[in-house]
Amino acid sequence: METTVKNKQVILRNYVKGIPKESDLMIVTASDPVELKVKPGSAAVMVKNLYLSCDPYMGILMREPTPSTLALLDAFIPGKPIAGIGVSQVIDSDDPSFTKGDMIWGIVNWEEYSTINPAGIFKIDVNVNVPLSYYTGILGMIGLTAYAGFYEICSPKKGETCVCLCGFCAGSKQKVDLLLKKFGYDDAFNYKEEPDLDSALKRCFPKGIDIYFENVGGKMLDAVLLNMKPYGRIAVCGMISQYHLETRDRLQNLPDIIFKKIRMQGFAVYDFIDRFPKFLEFVLPYIKEEKLTYVEDIVEGLENGPAALVGLLHGQTLVSKFSRLLESEEIYHVSCMDM
Amino acid sequence: METTVKNKQVILRNYVKGIPKESDLMIVTASDPVELKVKPGSAAVMVKNLYLSCDPYMGILMREPTPSTLALLDAFIPGKPIAGIGVSQVIDSDDPSFTKGDMIWGIVNWEEYSTINPAGIFKIDVNVNVPLSYYTGILGMIGLTAYAGFYEICSPKKGETCVCLCGFCAGSKQKVDLLLKKFGYDDAFNYKEEPDLDSALKRCFPKGIDIYFENVGGKMLDAVLLNMKPYGRIAVCGMISQYHLETRDRLQNLPDIIFKKIRMQGFAVYDFIDRFPKFLEFVLPYIKEEKLTYVEDIVEGLENGPAALVGLLHGQTLVSKFSRLLESEEIYHVSCMDM
Repeated sequence: METTVKNKQVILRNYVKGIPKESDLMIVTASDPVELKVKPGSAAVMVKNLYLSCDPYMGILMREPTPSTLALLDAFIPGKPIAGIGVSQVIDSDDPSFTKGDMIWGIVNWEEYSTINPAGIFKIDVNVNVPLSYYTGILGMIGLTAYAGFYEICSPKKGETCVCLCGFCAGSKQKVDLLLKKFGYDDAFNYKEEPDLDSALKRCFPKGIDIYFENVGGKMLDAVLLNMKPYGRIAVCGMISQYHLETRDRLQNLPDIIFKKIRMQGFAVYDFIDRFPKFLEFVLPYIKEEKLTYVEDIVEGLENGPAALVGLLHGQTLVSKFSRLLESEEIYHVSCMDM
Repeated sequence: METTVKNKQVILRNYVKGIPKESDLMIVTASDPVELKVKPGSAAVMVKNLYLSCDPYMGILMREPTPSTLALLDAFIPGKPIAGIGVSQVIDSDDPSFTKGDMIWGIVNWEEYSTINPAGIFKIDVNVNVPLSYYTGILGMIGLTAYAGFYEICSPKKGETCVCLCGFCAGSKQKVDLLLKKFGYDDAFNYKEEPDLDSALKRCFPKGIDIYFENVGGKMLDAVLLNMKPYGRIAVCGMISQYHLETRDRLQNLPDIIFKKIRMQGFAVYDFIDRFPKFLEFVLPYIKEEKLTYVEDIVEGLENGPAALVGLLHGQTLVSKFSRLLESEEIYHVSCMDM
């Protein structure tokens, strides 16, 4: 067996301005071959990356960092590989908790082989019979984000109306069709074509909205604020429509936060990592019993990664990760996600 | 003793557009004389109003109501008296809890004599030796707003930096002088003259802001968001700079709510009425021991009320109610209020 390999990587050329373009990233092969072993005493783990996740927050990390964005995560470094959630197989390990052949998920660089600190990775139980790629989404950080945001930030009560608007997810007719046909929603609209978002929300939620899972921001948030019910909660997970705008949307309805005593709470999933085991216990039965519909959009090959990521940020991806809990005892109107 | 009197009132002419003007209000004397007795069996209380409070939220209630503002409070009715917090003396009572001569505070119409439902009024303990007018402010709804917003909404922790920006309060040199000289602040700025609010905040709070008591909104909120620390809390009590604008300020920094995991919570004091006895216990010792500096701006005569209220909404009032807790064991940087 060969002990050194070439390592293909996806590199950030320079800090990005505006919406990221494919040319902001480049595929390179690292000049030095990589030895497929970790240094003894390093406590590191070497992995081969199998699945890499495209997520909107990565667009923020491609921009020059500011004190604000640094409060979330370190930015990517020009000339270095970008990073994100991945599913990987252990090739060598100097940490006794991991053995060659183990499957893990966690933050890895966009490259074929990574040497990582095992503090930030999770071992995958391969006896749980689900696709490995699910750990980049519904069974990983994305699922935990939805779970923590909904159950811990939004404090849902039985009978409440909950809306989770997808980043760019309902930004095309195809996606609206998917919502209606595959996920069985009663109604859906394409927010890029809807002339009046307020009317669209009033049509879909005539009694108003108790809980809003915010991924979009801007004009969409403005329309939602107008349709929130008193004492509503907004879990603020992302504002994908706003990150790359030079001039952000003007909101007319922020004072509704006062009028309706609304709680708007920003959160990041890394503050809820300790809930991960509880979350898995919660979500796995739904998947096994097929009560959770989950759709993935997968492209093959690291060299196709930049187009996939940029496509997501431009709203061209059909679904990135998209799920709907088909049955819920607790909540009236559940919720799609596109993180 | 006369048993009927003429009742002077301050009437809203029509729903207001833009910032309220004095001409939006008018002084009238009700055509029918008022009998200074309540109807037996009515369970009502008749009072003579002694002090009436001017507060920014009253500007909202002068506008045509929307579903959003109705979630806060009913609007004033054109052709009828406006209403607000007042201190009054009981003239007659059909409720056994109140006796002629009692002092009370609560919501009353802007008029000389009001017949009210005693459910919404509080008896004043006149043995507590403080000016009666304090119950329109520091010892009433205003003080309770500050107390509940700060202690219950903001969850302050020892050592944190807390900023409470006054509505129009530091919108003049006189007010800045008052902050520096009377209240002993280390620094203060006039937000209407400061060319760069972000720099002004960085100068005053180089380590950032943990807690912000929001009364201003718009550009000020935008600058504060940029200077909030991770996991900061914003109690959203008012956005006085925005209520009367046709086009509200554009915010560039709303995504900071995500980056910094900020909690922004709208609230209204009426949800905290049950804390009132606890609040009085808390605040009275500070007043008696002169650890709380409190300044009032009082004009005399109901006929001068419209000018006072409109002056407040235009930022011309020197102070409406303004206090600073001079000593606090818990919090590093305390806070002025102008509700």
